[in-house]
Amino acid sequence: MPKAVILLSGGLDSTTCLAYAKQQGFECYAISFLYNQRHRAELEAAKVVAQHYQVKKHLVFPLDSAALAGSALTEKDIEVADYSGETVIPATYVPARNTVFLSVGLAWAEALGAYDLFIGASCVDYSGYPDCRPEFFEAFQKMASLATKEGVEGRPITLQTPLLYLSKAQTVLLGLSLGVDYSMTTSCYRLNEKGEACGRCDSCVFRKKGFAEAGVADPTKYY
Amino acid sequence: MPKAVILLSGGLDSTTCLAYAKQQGFECYAISFLYNQRHRAELEAAKVVAQHYQVKKHLVFPLDSAALAGSALTEKDIEVADYSGETVIPATYVPARNTVFLSVGLAWAEALGAYDLFIGASCVDYSGYPDCRPEFFEAFQKMASLATKEGVEGRPITLQTPLLYLSKAQTVLLGLSLGVDYSMTTSCYRLNEKGEACGRCDSCVFRKKGFAEAGVADPTKYY
Repeated sequence: MPKAVILLSGGLDSTTCLAYAKQQGFECYAISFLYNQRHRAELEAAKVVAQHYQVKKHLVFPLDSAALAGSALTEKDIEVADYSGETVIPATYVPARNTVFLSVGLAWAEALGAYDLFIGASCVDYSGYPDCRPEFFEAFQKMASLATKEGVEGRPITLQTPLLYLSKAQTVLLGLSLGVDYSMTTSCYRLNEKGEACGRCDSCVFRKKGFAEAGVADPTKYY
Repeated sequence: MPKAVILLSGGLDSTTCLAYAKQQGFECYAISFLYNQRHRAELEAAKVVAQHYQVKKHLVFPLDSAALAGSALTEKDIEVADYSGETVIPATYVPARNTVFLSVGLAWAEALGAYDLFIGASCVDYSGYPDCRPEFFEAFQKMASLATKEGVEGRPITLQTPLLYLSKAQTVLLGLSLGVDYSMTTSCYRLNEKGEACGRCDSCVFRKKGFAEAGVADPTKYY
């Protein structure tokens, strides 16, 4: 079986992405990042999901927070706002986060001998983060092809973004067709101590909308 | 003073690069990586260099080694070979290392509000690593411009590679013109316990050649 590295946050998208990669016949290596994020419960969810899908290895990669600072997701004194629908980049944007995550994923893929690197990003129901746009992923692919030994040898590591053009509802339906149990996943930026979701941050709003538009029950517990 | 982030290994190139950035009028933020590299003495050198140049901050960033594995620089059971002059990518290549280092540097630059990111790479006297070639840096710049808030806002973070087309001798001469004391720096992949250099690995051979061709005394202690 060919190997693949999958970025796994424990949220709805990355879990669907892992289920998809598994269904495509890949031996899956999941990687999650510990970057002082507010929503640590994500990591617990990622562990449950990784175990459920019996990934070959689940790497929890610590990233010193000083270099990923200045975001509402990493700084306690910056507030996570309710979803506003505005088109500006929100305070929850973490500097160059996907670039760092994908770079480490690329390094691990190269070290493992994996030729596929999956990320469950979408540019449809999303917060307008620059590093979730198709043009970013295209540029990352070009860079990655030049950066690695595999690229030089003519078989670059392929960045796989199967959810990129899917709405949240389409992602939910894809996941359900793959048998994903979304009660394992968590998306909220402001989870309470019981792991219940706020229902009002960007991430919650997109998630709720996804289940509603897909016409399926939302297993999320809201406070 | 505009801020700049400088990747600093404590070697000849990155030290010259820091001296150059400082001379260009930047307030310098240095970042070094702890990635289970053989040559930890580099980090000690980096600390000395950072202090000497009174950088605003020196961040030592730990990177879990599992994702940067499979190289002679990170695995004790893979041997660092003597310089061979061959054109193949040597065993000292670390998977996607510059991609990861630059990505973290990019994130830190964005968090700091720095618009310049320096790396002292050269494609002249080098080991043929794919991620030291001009086309890689060009692709990284394009990706970085799309990845960040600054890029979206029309003022992308600029990747600065002042040594890219300099031979090692030219780098040494540039550094000496800037007053660099190269006895602070260390380049060897196989330093002994006293911090003395082997004189035979790729890194030593290029360094020695640089001093020889520049016609200046080599302050390196060899065993």
